[in-house]
Parts: sequence; structure tokens; C-alpha cells
Amino acid sequence: MEMPVHGFQTVDSLDFRRGMSRLGAAVNIVTTKAADGPYGFTASAVCSVSDTPAMLLACLNRTSSCFPAFEKAQYFGVNTLSSGHEALSNLFGGKTAMAERFAGGQWREGCSGSPLLADALVHFECELVQSLDLGTHRVLFGRVIGLATGDCEDALFYVARRYATLSTREA
Amino acid sequence: MEMPVHGFQTVDSLDFRRGMSRLGAAVNIVTTKAADGPYGFTASAVCSVSDTPAMLLACLNRTSSCFPAFEKAQYFGVNTLSSGHEALSNLFGGKTAMAERFAGGQWREGCSGSPLLADALVHFECELVQSLDLGTHRVLFGRVIGLATGDCEDALFYVARRYATLSTREA
Repeated sequence: MEMPVHGFQTVDSLDFRRGMSRLGAAVNIVTTKAADGPYGFTASAVCSVSDTPAMLLACLNRTSSCFPAFEKAQYFGVNTLSSGHEALSNLFGGKTAMAERFAGGQWREGCSGSPLLADALVHFECELVQSLDLGTHRVLFGRVIGLATGDCEDALFYVARRYATLSTREA
Repeated sequence: MEMPVHGFQTVDSLDFRRGMSRLGAAVNIVTTKAADGPYGFTASAVCSVSDTPAMLLACLNRTSSCFPAFEKAQYFGVNTLSSGHEALSNLFGGKTAMAERFAGGQWREGCSGSPLLADALVHFECELVQSLDLGTHRVLFGRVIGLATGDCEDALFYVARRYATLSTREA
């Protein structure tokens, strides 16, 4: 149980997750290359921080099997998923071994070595510039050193505990 | 121009914004109560950080007219928008005076004083526990001390520089 601080108690984690399920988000696979191979996890907690310089953030659970790899990483990739990537999202969001996760998609190495998903909606290659531990998670802040958009124009979202898609085709 | 660090140059801000436009997000109005009245801004850079304890983050441009109010704030609210809130989102995302922004919606004060939007998809009341300046923005980290969901079940998103909606109705 959380102790109240300054008089207000923290909301229960189950209530928080129920509330957060209404705050939908794009689905991403965050990747890095470690000495023993590629690592990656599915993340909806990814957002833009600044455009000058270009920076984004991604949140990672510190109990994740990926955590030791990201703890040592100097670079990481953020691969935003398209419609049709539901199975890949599930693969990178579960307990599957890393080699099996990466076998589920087509990857190439970016200039920093980070695995980039060939058919991502968009991918960002980042240099880790700061990190911050809060609660169960580490927030990774990345300076964006490369990006490319893919051919698919339908974005994958996760909202109300299910997948949905929205078009990104420019009018 | 950004100088290269560790050999990789930061991507151009226009390219970054073009790439980021593919990474769609829910739309929120982040609010606080200052000594001279309520303040609020539209933000898509909001995400969950941790569920134990319940924490979220929101990014705010430090050149925003709201910034001085949030710099002093101990509490803030995150109001996730529903379909039908497009005009309110535009109002809180522009240069409109604060009183006029808040006149565009129905608000109540939360336990911490933060303005909460009566018909938000969900709103979170937060205590600021940490903040971090990166590039042009400040990242506000909040411990969630209250939340409530509204009656509307259609969530507002911003992707490819336009609004879209997705249902949050539980199957």
C-alpha cells in the first residue's frame, strides 16, 4: 500500500491501469544491440520531448528481461508499428526469448547498431542522453540521430486493452 | 544547427516533426491552479510511467505562456479528451487568453485545486514529484492522487496532423 504524501494518497494501481486504458497510444517496439545480440520490447509509453534538438522518451519496466541490455545501451531504436503488426507487438510484449522475437519481423541495423524494423510506420534511431528511474520504470531520453518512414500508412494503436488502427495518409 | 555528439548529428527539427506526425497520440489538456487563476495547455506528449506507485508524465514547452504557472505548481491535472473536444483542444493549443480557454468547457476543481474537465474521457489529478528540462521542454512527473472516467467512450487522437477518434467501449 502506498503511503499518503502531503495528505493525498496515491490511487490504487488497478484503478490507475483501468483509467490509463482510456488514454490510448501508438504501439512501438524499442530496441537496442547488446554484446550478446539484439533486445527489444513493446512500449506504448513513448512520446516526443523536444524538436530543437529532436528528442523523445520511452519508458521501460526495470523488472523486464530487457532491462540489463538497455541499462548498458548507448543507443536505442523506436519502431512505431503499422496495422498488421499486432502479432509482432504481442511477441515483443510477452516472455518470448529475444531471438524468437526478432525472427518475427524483418530488421536491419541502423548507423548506431540499433535494430530497425523494415516495415515500421516510422522508426527513430536515438542516442541515450539521460535516464530517470521513477516507480517501477526507467525513462530513457534519446536524442534522435536518424529516422525514416515506411510505406504502410495505417498506424497501430492500443486503447481500451485492444488494438485499433488509424490512417496517417496526408490529406 | 545542432553539433554532432559522438559522431552522429541530430536530425533536423522539421524532419523530426514530420516523422513524429506518424506517431499519433491521445489529446489531453494539462491544467493547474495558480494564485491568479487556472492555467492549461493541450498536450499529446503524456504517458504512463509506473503503476506502483501510479505515475504519469507530461511535457510542456518552456516558452509556453503557461510555463511560469506550472513552474510554481505543486499539483496538476491531466484531462484526456473525447470526440467532440476538437474545438477545446484548439483553444488550449493556441494563443488564447486563459479565461477564454476555460470558458470553452465545463470545469470543476479537484481535491488539489487542479481544474478537471467535467466531460473528459478520463482525468488524472497529480502531485508533481519531479521535473526535468530537456531541449525546449520540461517533463513533469506526477504521482496520481485521483482519477475518474467520464460518460463519453470515444477517445480523441491526433495523428498525421489531424484529429481522429477511436472507441474505448469495453467489448
